[in-house]
Amino acid sequence: MQRQIEVGVLGATGMVGQHFVKFLQGHPWFKLTWVGASDRSAGKKYREATSWRLAGAMPEAVADLQVEECKPGNAPKIVFSATDASVATEIEQAFAKAGHTVVSNSRNHRMDSDVPLLVPEINAGHLGILARQKQARGWPGQIVTNPNCSTIVLTMALGPLKQFGIRRVLATTMQAISGAGYPGVPSMDINANVIPFIGGEEEKMEQETQKILGDYVDGALRDMDARVSAHCNRVPVVDGHLVATSVELGSKVKVDDLIRAFESFRAIPQERKLPSAPARPVIYMAEKDRPQPRRDAERENGMACFVGRVRECPVLDFKFLALGHNTVRGAAGAAVLNAELMCSEGLIQ
Amino acid sequence: MQRQIEVGVLGATGMVGQHFVKFLQGHPWFKLTWVGASDRSAGKKYREATSWRLAGAMPEAVADLQVEECKPGNAPKIVFSATDASVATEIEQAFAKAGHTVVSNSRNHRMDSDVPLLVPEINAGHLGILARQKQARGWPGQIVTNPNCSTIVLTMALGPLKQFGIRRVLATTMQAISGAGYPGVPSMDINANVIPFIGGEEEKMEQETQKILGDYVDGALRDMDARVSAHCNRVPVVDGHLVATSVELGSKVKVDDLIRAFESFRAIPQERKLPSAPARPVIYMAEKDRPQPRRDAERENGMACFVGRVRECPVLDFKFLALGHNTVRGAAGAAVLNAELMCSEGLIQ
Amino acid sequence: MQRQIEVGVLGATGMVGQHFVKFLQGHPWFKLTWVGASDRSAGKKYREATSWRLAGAMPEAVADLQVEECKPGNAPKIVFSATDASVATEIEQAFAKAGHTVVSNSRNHRMDSDVPLLVPEINAGHLGILARQKQARGWPGQIVTNPNCSTIVLTMALGPLKQFGIRRVLATTMQAISGAGYPGVPSMDINANVIPFIGGEEEKMEQETQKILGDYVDGALRDMDARVSAHCNRVPVVDGHLVATSVELGSKVKVDDLIRAFESFRAIPQERKLPSAPARPVIYMAEKDRPQPRRDAERENGMACFVGRVRECPVLDFKFLALGHNTVRGAAGAAVLNAELMCSEGLIQ
Amino acid sequence: MQRQIEVGVLGATGMVGQHFVKFLQGHPWFKLTWVGASDRSAGKKYREATSWRLAGAMPEAVADLQVEECKPGNAPKIVFSATDASVATEIEQAFAKAGHTVVSNSRNHRMDSDVPLLVPEINAGHLGILARQKQARGWPGQIVTNPNCSTIVLTMALGPLKQFGIRRVLATTMQAISGAGYPGVPSMDINANVIPFIGGEEEKMEQETQKILGDYVDGALRDMDARVSAHCNRVPVVDGHLVATSVELGSKVKVDDLIRAFESFRAIPQERKLPSAPARPVIYMAEKDRPQPRRDAERENGMACFVGRVRECPVLDFKFLALGHNTVRGAAGAAVLNAELMCSEGLIQ
Repeated sequence: MQRQIEVGVLGATGMVGQHFVKFLQGHPWFKLTWVGASDRSAGKKYREATSWRLAGAMPEAVADLQVEECKPGNAPKIVFSATDASVATEIEQAFAKAGHTVVSNSRNHRMDSDVPLLVPEINAGHLGILARQKQARGWPGQIVTNPNCSTIVLTMALGPLKQFGIRRVLATTMQAISGAGYPGVPSMDINANVIPFIGGEEEKMEQETQKILGDYVDGALRDMDARVSAHCNRVPVVDGHLVATSVELGSKVKVDDLIRAFESFRAIPQERKLPSAPARPVIYMAEKDRPQPRRDAERENGMACFVGRVRECPVLDFKFLALGHNTVRGAAGAAVLNAELMCSEGLIQ
Repeated sequence: MQRQIEVGVLGATGMVGQHFVKFLQGHPWFKLTWVGASDRSAGKKYREATSWRLAGAMPEAVADLQVEECKPGNAPKIVFSATDASVATEIEQAFAKAGHTVVSNSRNHRMDSDVPLLVPEINAGHLGILARQKQARGWPGQIVTNPNCSTIVLTMALGPLKQFGIRRVLATTMQAISGAGYPGVPSMDINANVIPFIGGEEEKMEQETQKILGDYVDGALRDMDARVSAHCNRVPVVDGHLVATSVELGSKVKVDDLIRAFESFRAIPQERKLPSAPARPVIYMAEKDRPQPRRDAERENGMACFVGRVRECPVLDFKFLALGHNTVRGAAGAAVLNAELMCSEGLIQ
Repeated sequence: MQRQIEVGVLGATGMVGQHFVKFLQGHPWFKLTWVGASDRSAGKKYREATSWRLAGAMPEAVADLQVEECKPGNAPKIVFSATDASVATEIEQAFAKAGHTVVSNSRNHRMDSDVPLLVPEINAGHLGILARQKQARGWPGQIVTNPNCSTIVLTMALGPLKQFGIRRVLATTMQAISGAGYPGVPSMDINANVIPFIGGEEEKMEQETQKILGDYVDGALRDMDARVSAHCNRVPVVDGHLVATSVELGSKVKVDDLIRAFESFRAIPQERKLPSAPARPVIYMAEKDRPQPRRDAERENGMACFVGRVRECPVLDFKFLALGHNTVRGAAGAAVLNAELMCSEGLIQ
Repeated sequence: MQRQIEVGVLGATGMVGQHFVKFLQGHPWFKLTWVGASDRSAGKKYREATSWRLAGAMPEAVADLQVEECKPGNAPKIVFSATDASVATEIEQAFAKAGHTVVSNSRNHRMDSDVPLLVPEINAGHLGILARQKQARGWPGQIVTNPNCSTIVLTMALGPLKQFGIRRVLATTMQAISGAGYPGVPSMDINANVIPFIGGEEEKMEQETQKILGDYVDGALRDMDARVSAHCNRVPVVDGHLVATSVELGSKVKVDDLIRAFESFRAIPQERKLPSAPARPVIYMAEKDRPQPRRDAERENGMACFVGRVRECPVLDFKFLALGHNTVRGAAGAAVLNAELMCSEGLIQ
């Protein structure tokens, strides 16, 4: 499948926007030809409007693009949204209304009952709700979202266990500083320290997980019938969210069954060999002290979820660790994979 | 109460031994007059035998003590044991056999059915088992132990909740590097990283917690009838173990009841004003993002347990954070407080 | 000498202001009775106006003070200035004009030819310039300043060498994040990284050092006749600025002469036993790998300069390391010691 | 130039050995077919003998190699030496005596008068001394070495300035923990700290720099006639040595001349397009706060030297920063480039 689809990025000059620009570099299907940002930046070259903070240089082809206002007008059919939550609702709806497919990393529409909260390996079927979204909202375009960065890690690890009937999930996160953007966490707060609080994060993990692991039934999205509790902590790590997880399952299974489920897990993105899909979405590590954020998060282009230390839990049934790259699989890479899935489904013409 | 009781430290040149030496400096009851270490060190001055690694200078009075072999002989009646687990069983028993009270930080005898695993605020009554220990072992002396550093933090936070009937506890730790001694954790492993494994730690937390929160009934120690699960992680923090905790309780209570229980908690060490006892064993912090290891662990001379973010848990009943100083309240300070309690009970003549 | 002198702090709610509040707690001469801040805070209690970020609790006696506007009015005779550079000129001059002694940590007046840039152990004689300041400016009050935090460390180490004739100084700093205030350095910039640039810092070190080590001659301050070059770097350390220093001297001396000069150095603050003066202003550490910021900066109440690794330099004559606590000796403690010196000189009635 | 030259690695199971194994993966000329290690490992598969500590998985092709003793026998013609200094002299000489070309990262022969201490961009001409080495030692083989990791960074930055006549160099390093191998620096020493001492490092930087920047004249290596002084510090950074450098030059030049010299610098490895040679050996960064180890060291495959903040120095003539990747350009990559240069010179048949 060879394609050359033009795409744009809303909020392209911010940190998440920069991650989109970097992740899209050399993409086999998508060509970034349009960058939108605030009025303050509009009219400048991307290189002038952007304080580039990522490792590696700014992609040359993008550096010379002129930054546009975040208005539909001449933007490509597909736009990735990295807009700030304070303005995302209005901007994203304007683009959907104007016929664009908005593939959003913002949190604003995630919990809407007619918006898919998509993890392509887990709930590709949720795309079915788009028909209702278009009808109800009267939009020629559409909005799909990806979850919060810590939710993605958790749900990718829980996906293979759905077959065993997930009843209760208790997840304690140790999250990287890059998850807070820039300037983000002051070094005086996090140097040689842990901050046991991230505003709104626990609620997001608890609610989003239930939506993602739920089902699309009778034309509606129905939450997973399970309880989820999250403890969210910030730790002095650059990239990679680590989640210490305990689960209670409906079926009588053993540790080996879980490991087999993790190792054999494949889904639509793998079957269709979507460009950004990892060969194996979940990688089980047998070493006694893995996964570790600094050593593992960047493997597999940052698109896999790493699982380790699967063992029995004296309180719930099993416990294990899950790790994922928060700015790749947890943000820009997630949205791009969502767009790839939609293209492969024929949902974007 | 004015006293001047001579004490010794077994394993005085190692890291835990150094913490004992530092903590005992200026103690109003105990005077450190005897330091024991391996044959290699015996005969040297303490200052020559010891590679001092703690902040602040080595106490002058101790620096000139001659290091002795770890044999009873001329040691004081009370000896604190900071000996390595590989030799602690033999050494500690030799001292007890020779009539000494061994107040140990080593793990070897913690789970013995006739050895108190003591947290003075929580289970002072467990000292009753010493009668059986002396009788069964035929020792003129005795051995008492303090828990693992992460267990102490957890049990101090759970102590005030025992009245509500503890049924299930799920604890995820973020532990400081000082807990691993010296050289301990290689910087290449922990710099900007998390190591989600600490050998033997989860088992210790699960078992020790049940013993400590259990009761001394009919001349025997009976474990708490509750299930405990621990996830143990090392994080790049210098001092202070933070424990994200979820609990299920037998009584119908509310968040405010827990907070009141934490805030009003006082026990024997406070009533008797033992020298190392914190004024309040558990300090509830109302700020939304506390406690934090670097900012809070050293308060109250490192002897209190800090609790915060008490809230409902969608999976068990409540969740909260607990923090304690691992090398003070979790090691040397714990043992010294144990000895103070025993003196106040008249268990050491 | 027993005193009870009321003092105030300008800019008391900011980070430097908080350091003043903390440092003054329990001071034997000075009683903090007045706190000034921006209009936004004026009228509130200090505890409500301040987001306290220091380790340990906010001093109770100060918490209940009402924050005042930074205007002379009812402020005490001595005010410490922790005001932001953007407003310090105007505020400090207003107080001096109204008869107050302004002991400032701000940079605004440091390089004025009639303002002492004071390090009490090094250049107490510079106070002589105050007569000219009062005359020239027509102020009943006066302004004295303390140097930049990294300059203090360097000059305290150079002070004992002044007798040998300092000709050239090349200083490379590794500075703690607390030096940048709050929120200060974003963790994404400094976690596991070095930032080899601190705005304005190199210029300050180069100019201030020459003023401080210069002389008060014939009613004027004359710069030291030496060349100074600084390389300033931010490193992921919480407190303590470390300065790798090479010096060229006018006299033929040996390493041992330097060590003796460091060890024997005492000055007016020590002779008069000023309350905040360290017993020894410069402490030479003989260990091969000291001083180190995390292990040494807090010793001696953070008021001493630690020197180590004195050795020959193949390019200039000697090289060594100097370390000091940047928020104590480098800021609040420096200013308080300045005020103590002035009281002891009878310069404040 | 297409080649397929078999190579071996001495000391292949250690940290430096692992860096060689990783760096040689997919090399267009060299195929790693032989791994040597201590007797303890010999006979095992590489995957069993090695505790792999690098990011990314162990290369499959190497994992199944059988580890050999470090004796000449069946080893390939070219062997890279990552042997420990305690055994390197004997092992490397045995291989040279048996006709092998030993391309060593060990320090043992670096300062021998008949051994090139090679940085291909700087002193390729030093290979001329090999004729004398072979003659004097009577070896059919030969030994070449690469410098210490911090020396390489410094000399690559000084190379372009040699034309201006280098007279004095004062270099203060901030070195990454990976430079100390594994387990290397204990986290208790370096977490939120600086260790201002690295054993033997300052002497190496001072001596090696003079040899590298010297000339091969009249059949002998003659040291650069300049003075070099190094201050070496360990900082909590994972990879990348940063060197704050001041230089005195013989010619009257300006800052712009230095920048031009850095930017235009190209040498034999670039002309011959050696596989591991960076396109530009020295990359000048114009940003005010670069280079930075975490953001820049890995660029250009870790083979370039990054220079920034070129400015006048009030003590010597100019000051600037230099940064390089210590385990790539400073170790394995350096040796591989040395071997590539020697192949391109026809020095290895």
